[in-house]
Amino acid sequence: MSVEEQDTKTTDTAGLEVLDRDECLRLLAQAPIGRIVFTDRALPAVQPVNFTMHGVDIVIRTSPDSKLARATRDTVVAFEVDDYDVQGRTGWSVMVVGLGRAVTDPGELAVLEELPLRPWAPGRRSHFIRIVTDIITGRRIPS
Amino acid sequence: MSVEEQDTKTTDTAGLEVLDRDECLRLLAQAPIGRIVFTDRALPAVQPVNFTMHGVDIVIRTSPDSKLARATRDTVVAFEVDDYDVQGRTGWSVMVVGLGRAVTDPGELAVLEELPLRPWAPGRRSHFIRIVTDIITGRRIPS
Repeated sequence: MSVEEQDTKTTDTAGLEVLDRDECLRLLAQAPIGRIVFTDRALPAVQPVNFTMHGVDIVIRTSPDSKLARATRDTVVAFEVDDYDVQGRTGWSVMVVGLGRAVTDPGELAVLEELPLRPWAPGRRSHFIRIVTDIITGRRIPS
Repeated sequence: MSVEEQDTKTTDTAGLEVLDRDECLRLLAQAPIGRIVFTDRALPAVQPVNFTMHGVDIVIRTSPDSKLARATRDTVVAFEVDDYDVQGRTGWSVMVVGLGRAVTDPGELAVLEELPLRPWAPGRRSHFIRIVTDIITGRRIPS
């Protein structure tokens, strides 16, 4: 990142402040919940999940026979985190687009199982999905 | 709704409590922010917006030349609201699927302009999008 980029806040055509990649990754790392966007029977679908980061990738735990597991396998998905202050009418959002991948490699599974990722929902969640981050974008409503 | 349905909480295959339509509409009506899911240059995309309800439909204000306005015109989109308690590891989400429609009828515009919907983001937001609600689903993590 150049000094210029650090000092100047870029805004998009909608007047929102554009967040740089480092800021997006910082916000992703501290968000407890994100929303995964996929296609379910040819219709758009979105589901909140808790998650963790592994490098720049998103890691989610679910059950192997879940709709989410089926719908995100070898498919490009979006993933979103945000936070809002209703009183201040301000907030930010970060979106990742990347390939959803079922983790099956034993070595990779062993690494992911050590991550601090405990599903909120009940039931056995032995299946790991990795979203291999390709595009990261973020916006903030300027205060 | 039958008395049985009122008294018995249904759970889905993932162990989440299934919310009925009335509960979903109640939660939608009180959420300040939702996330609209659409396709942007053949990739999944998601963008948070403030909104209001008109009947069972979702109403959003944006600028007429925004990406959101273009991407949601006469297209099936999803819309999601949720709320989470990180400490309690619990929460709920509601998803609407429906046809996105640019509102152009002067009578309909006059009605929507009276709704309590003031955009958070800067700039002129004279364009109204209505999501004509078709499917409503909701889930809650049982406590």
